[in-house]
Amino acid sequence: MTGTLYGIGVGPGDPELITVKGLRLLREAPVLAYPAPETGDSLARSIVAGYLNGAKTEIAIRMPMVAARFPAQAVYDEAVETLGAHLGDGRNVAVLCEGDPFFYGSFMYLFGRMAERFPVEVIPGVSSLTACAAVLGAPLAARNDVMTVIPAPLDTDLIRARLKENDAAAIIKVGRHFARIHDLLAELGLAAQAHYVERATMENQRILPLDEVDDSAVPYFSMIVVHKRGEAWRL
Amino acid sequence: MTGTLYGIGVGPGDPELITVKGLRLLREAPVLAYPAPETGDSLARSIVAGYLNGAKTEIAIRMPMVAARFPAQAVYDEAVETLGAHLGDGRNVAVLCEGDPFFYGSFMYLFGRMAERFPVEVIPGVSSLTACAAVLGAPLAARNDVMTVIPAPLDTDLIRARLKENDAAAIIKVGRHFARIHDLLAELGLAAQAHYVERATMENQRILPLDEVDDSAVPYFSMIVVHKRGEAWRL
Repeated sequence: MTGTLYGIGVGPGDPELITVKGLRLLREAPVLAYPAPETGDSLARSIVAGYLNGAKTEIAIRMPMVAARFPAQAVYDEAVETLGAHLGDGRNVAVLCEGDPFFYGSFMYLFGRMAERFPVEVIPGVSSLTACAAVLGAPLAARNDVMTVIPAPLDTDLIRARLKENDAAAIIKVGRHFARIHDLLAELGLAAQAHYVERATMENQRILPLDEVDDSAVPYFSMIVVHKRGEAWRL
Repeated sequence: MTGTLYGIGVGPGDPELITVKGLRLLREAPVLAYPAPETGDSLARSIVAGYLNGAKTEIAIRMPMVAARFPAQAVYDEAVETLGAHLGDGRNVAVLCEGDPFFYGSFMYLFGRMAERFPVEVIPGVSSLTACAAVLGAPLAARNDVMTVIPAPLDTDLIRARLKENDAAAIIKVGRHFARIHDLLAELGLAAQAHYVERATMENQRILPLDEVDDSAVPYFSMIVVHKRGEAWRL
């Protein structure tokens, strides 16, 4: 009998923000896989490290730090072979995913390659989106707000248009785009309604006013949440 | 010493999709509060019922089923008095929230009334947004997609504009607006890329092609996910 591939959202960083289901399935799976940089530790694995008992086969899916598509394809193709061999032998495989597997996650590339050949189950997780709202103490969206998630690498004109027409926005993957986004928010008169969070719920989480962010040191895992309606939740 | 108010996201419906943290805090809290209809059971409480041991004070915040703002204000004002008395006596209060407390949730109305007077901590939860993507087996957003959440009660022209310009959309609170939204998706040529889910991860979850939905019986907890780029996750 074939094993099942579980894509498990481990949540935004606080190990306690994994779901009960995700924790059970990762403990039960004999094989664990996770994304990792070319050298060094996997963030997804580090989030659940305290729950691991060491009796598993572990597979790090190591991604070269280049934006090109072809090396990534080769890495996923190889991972499919490795994970597929375990599944074919009847062993369940748990793939750890930061946040939620299907919310801007790399799990979808494994999913796209494997879902037709093997049983796959996705265990949703707490995304950075709601984690940021929680640590900011500021509701993300209320009533009939239109709420948009905007990746910061996009073109400035496109981001401007989306910010103008929506009630609330989360700008993700801020990283080296911070200065440009900050200027844009100032231009739109939205800087005072924007909140910056990096590594929400992780031990090194930081929440800063936009003016105090060092734009040369903004990590990929950072977000700017914009509430155009201000305190709409005060019914 | 004052108690802490915890807003706990219990997740989309499957009891195992509560977080480890949410479960710990609700078990520890001597007082439990939850939204409920005017008569009958609370959905949020039913999600965690299997975890409760019966030794708690329970407070149902019962909301009249009318859309008007004034009765709701009175209900929240009264809840603030009740919960505030427990907090003032040093007892922690856990408020159960379907999905995530700050993602279109009613917890924000308690938050708005109480956060300046009492310590409040929000425990993010798995939202219906990522739960729907998981049960559909279809990633919500990939790479630099702009992803928008659109409440179905909004004006058709506004929804049309948002659907036209974004890469992925989740139309929430579909309910009695289904037929209008279905027509709009057909008009935009998006019906084939739209997926309908009701009560994601609950025991009575249903996933249907749009054509098979009985538009007279669509519940509030239903969502249509639209992927304009199709299978963008096939790297």
